[in-house]
Amino acid sequence: MMSPTNLYAGYMRLSTAEVSDSLNSFGYCGALKGIRSHQWGLKFFGPAFTVTRTTNDDPNYCDASEFLDQVPAGYVIVIDNLGITDSTCWGGILTACAKNKQIQGTVINGVYRDAETVRALNYPVFSKGVFMVTGKGRTRLKGLNIPVNIEGVTIHPSDLIFGDANGVVVIPFEKAEEVLTRAEHIQDVEKQIERLVVFEGLTLREAREIMKYNQLTNISGSHS
Amino acid sequence: MMSPTNLYAGYMRLSTAEVSDSLNSFGYCGALKGIRSHQWGLKFFGPAFTVTRTTNDDPNYCDASEFLDQVPAGYVIVIDNLGITDSTCWGGILTACAKNKQIQGTVINGVYRDAETVRALNYPVFSKGVFMVTGKGRTRLKGLNIPVNIEGVTIHPSDLIFGDANGVVVIPFEKAEEVLTRAEHIQDVEKQIERLVVFEGLTLREAREIMKYNQLTNISGSHS
Amino acid sequence: MMSPTNLYAGYMRLSTAEVSDSLNSFGYCGALKGIRSHQWGLKFFGPAFTVTRTTNDDPNYCDASEFLDQVPAGYVIVIDNLGITDSTCWGGILTACAKNKQIQGTVINGVYRDAETVRALNYPVFSKGVFMVTGKGRTRLKGLNIPVNIEGVTIHPSDLIFGDANGVVVIPFEKAEEVLTRAEHIQDVEKQIERLVVFEGLTLREAREIMKYNQLTNISGSHS
Repeated sequence: MMSPTNLYAGYMRLSTAEVSDSLNSFGYCGALKGIRSHQWGLKFFGPAFTVTRTTNDDPNYCDASEFLDQVPAGYVIVIDNLGITDSTCWGGILTACAKNKQIQGTVINGVYRDAETVRALNYPVFSKGVFMVTGKGRTRLKGLNIPVNIEGVTIHPSDLIFGDANGVVVIPFEKAEEVLTRAEHIQDVEKQIERLVVFEGLTLREAREIMKYNQLTNISGSHS
Repeated sequence: MMSPTNLYAGYMRLSTAEVSDSLNSFGYCGALKGIRSHQWGLKFFGPAFTVTRTTNDDPNYCDASEFLDQVPAGYVIVIDNLGITDSTCWGGILTACAKNKQIQGTVINGVYRDAETVRALNYPVFSKGVFMVTGKGRTRLKGLNIPVNIEGVTIHPSDLIFGDANGVVVIPFEKAEEVLTRAEHIQDVEKQIERLVVFEGLTLREAREIMKYNQLTNISGSHS
Repeated sequence: MMSPTNLYAGYMRLSTAEVSDSLNSFGYCGALKGIRSHQWGLKFFGPAFTVTRTTNDDPNYCDASEFLDQVPAGYVIVIDNLGITDSTCWGGILTACAKNKQIQGTVINGVYRDAETVRALNYPVFSKGVFMVTGKGRTRLKGLNIPVNIEGVTIHPSDLIFGDANGVVVIPFEKAEEVLTRAEHIQDVEKQIERLVVFEGLTLREAREIMKYNQLTNISGSHS
């Protein structure tokens, strides 16, 4: 088994597109629809610490996201806030604390606030958007580190979460190495194709034939 | 009563998140859903000059937004264009004129055009998006400085409009000082919590208990 | 007939807003709803090379966008991917190849991937958004250089496609010179109005009366 450090280094040399193609060839999808970065240049990778929230039925309940104290360094926080876009579940203080704890990023099925602070800290928050109304009194914590379902994708605690400017993909923990190896192969082939076209003057069709590009999408046959 | 200059200075030191929390504790919301800035770094504050528009039933009517001549310096223009996203009601000339008149910003329940010009002038236009088709012949002026309702929030002329990267909140004119004072308190408490966690090494739970954070959301009791 | 070089130079001095107003005065619209740039500063112009895609009914079919080899320099690729937002039809290799071939830009009724690569290359891809899941096995090529319909606008091969930060407009090939001439007139009048207000201190109403602004929207009478 590859060390977490090598796994991290391996994924961070890739893009979500290459990893998605690799997942795809194993029969997975794992792409979170409608969740994206609101600034350029952010990329993150780590195991999921999952947080589920629900609508609040108790006006005296105050849930202040203190789960943050339990998240280990290196993890990615995945919050299912039910896709709600008119109240938030993440903001500036949480971002400052998360960055301080070396948490890798936060993925929200919902929205966050303090967008300028988050931007200034360069901490990855991927979400459905930005708003400023507090979630207090509106939603509340339901559970920690239980499987969550976001847009049809089930995320188990410790599944690997990878995000870049294209969006977020979820990699099943037990598949992490296989998916990485295949994604690295895909990256190599695509770099070669690009080089053949841009620097060697081949047509795209010629370059793809030489690199057996079409077999990439059907690569799982060689592993089964 | 605080001077307009001090009120302006006070709000501009805050964020819409802090002001929203303050409004919330008084039982208001005032947040305009779906309306946001399309660039980073913009913030504005001022009393509302309201503009209502309606669909055009007269093909010979030409409405050229000449209301701009009547807007006083320091105001924020709030245009209800019915949420329409396929024709515009604001553009480059209006932006250049508004900036020249020291108008603080424009909030649109709809879309604007000349996005690069607006960006270059660094003038705050907060809207539902950008498009290029003129509103002429499609929508027309209905009224000036009458209450408008945007996404369920009623905005009266001279209500205070505050916007930043999180979006736009509306503060009832008569509540402006109370909301400011409470928002400043919220900002102070949150800065202390962040300092205790990031620089003093407390957990988020400890820091919040010390700063009596949970009472912040229920603060209105002490004022009523 | 104006040379393609002069036509290109003429349009690139304008914005889509001015061209849209010109089209509007001839009774055209041609604006593509919901399709936009995801970065600032991009502008493109050229004749359309149209690509239509359809849902894939053959799991063994692999469509690798090799149509790119056929697109002439100076053209704009217009892909109708049915408005699908959960799988892509354009990415980094295609962008590198297209830029290398001096293709002017790509307009997608759908989404693309490799957003950071596309941004780094500064090549205009205008779309409904960004995602990372491949279109292979999900959609396939249906036809090249046949008319496509995007959001109610029909685009014929060689129609002229013009995009900037406001979005994309389609100019019928046979109208290109007339639309350009009128758009240039609109630009001149608007620059004069802005100058009269900002530098000469006139009201917007006065400036518009002097420049006979209201006749701009009704200008087609003088050409028919």
